[in-house]
Amino acid sequence: MLCLANETNAEWVRVAVAKPDAILIDHAHCEKKAAAFALAMINRYPQRTRLVKDMIDLAKEELEHFETVVLILEQRGVTLTVDRGNPYAKALHDHIRTSEPHRLLDSLIVGAFIEARSCERFSLLAKHATEPAMRELYASLLASEAGHYRAYTDIAREYFPVTDVKERLTAFAGIEAAIVAALPNAPTMHG
Amino acid sequence: MLCLANETNAEWVRVAVAKPDAILIDHAHCEKKAAAFALAMINRYPQRTRLVKDMIDLAKEELEHFETVVLILEQRGVTLTVDRGNPYAKALHDHIRTSEPHRLLDSLIVGAFIEARSCERFSLLAKHATEPAMRELYASLLASEAGHYRAYTDIAREYFPVTDVKERLTAFAGIEAAIVAALPNAPTMHG
Repeated sequence: MLCLANETNAEWVRVAVAKPDAILIDHAHCEKKAAAFALAMINRYPQRTRLVKDMIDLAKEELEHFETVVLILEQRGVTLTVDRGNPYAKALHDHIRTSEPHRLLDSLIVGAFIEARSCERFSLLAKHATEPAMRELYASLLASEAGHYRAYTDIAREYFPVTDVKERLTAFAGIEAAIVAALPNAPTMHG
Repeated sequence: MLCLANETNAEWVRVAVAKPDAILIDHAHCEKKAAAFALAMINRYPQRTRLVKDMIDLAKEELEHFETVVLILEQRGVTLTVDRGNPYAKALHDHIRTSEPHRLLDSLIVGAFIEARSCERFSLLAKHATEPAMRELYASLLASEAGHYRAYTDIAREYFPVTDVKERLTAFAGIEAAIVAALPNAPTMHG
């Protein structure tokens, strides 16, 4: 799926569908952090107008989804808990090169992979979640995650030669797959 | 106006209307930072559902305005520059008490004052900007800044006794007025 080099293992699906509220809480935080990441990208690259405009669009959509999930949590009588961070995203970010313009390219590729993996996991939840409402929710969010993956890769191609983008997508496909293979199958979106 | 204890001096208006692009750029960054502040409040107080929902609404509106200003800048052939920070907001934040729940109350009051001062300055620009398009822009944004002031104070009243909220509004009115009186009249929204 998309650029991913491996599939989420069945054990994560088992854990995730058994804890729908935990997954929703983590999902809410993921949407919030995706919006915050978009704002951080704007802060870092204010002169890249294409990036600024696309990141605003992305942040707006992430906030819409954040709101959707917060309202569902409220309906379920579940309160958001403290965000404990996302070791998967952190591990990916650790592979971003620190010198520019490499940092920009790698940041966009990392953004793309997080969206792609979320998309894959949403598709698993859309299929395997025990409650119809949960299956519907994740099915409804699938397309937009795929859209965000494309947004990140489109921005990358705007600012970098296609071969450079391809090369980093391939490199990060390996990095991301290794990170995912080592995940503990926790009841979080990227657990 | 609203809770403000003094008025912006005429010199700022003169400087601001002479540099519409500089004001627009700084305004864009203010909208972006207001959205980021709302997300930071959610991060800090995820269990306060009323706050979380209101902060999402506020962040969404700030992003809409951010987008509006970015598009106007693009039409004017002006590119966003690096955000140099906001000494006015920083000075206000320095007065937030560090222990909870005081930190929550003061953070909400500071949010309210930044919105109130922005509202006052938008009203000045709506009146004095040399270009009709600029006057219209600031007039159109006025009401929502006042709405954000109310959002912050309403959340404060949700979680704290009215007398406590009033007491901190009065204290910060003096603090904010002193900060504003000492501003250098720079061509920024809170300069």
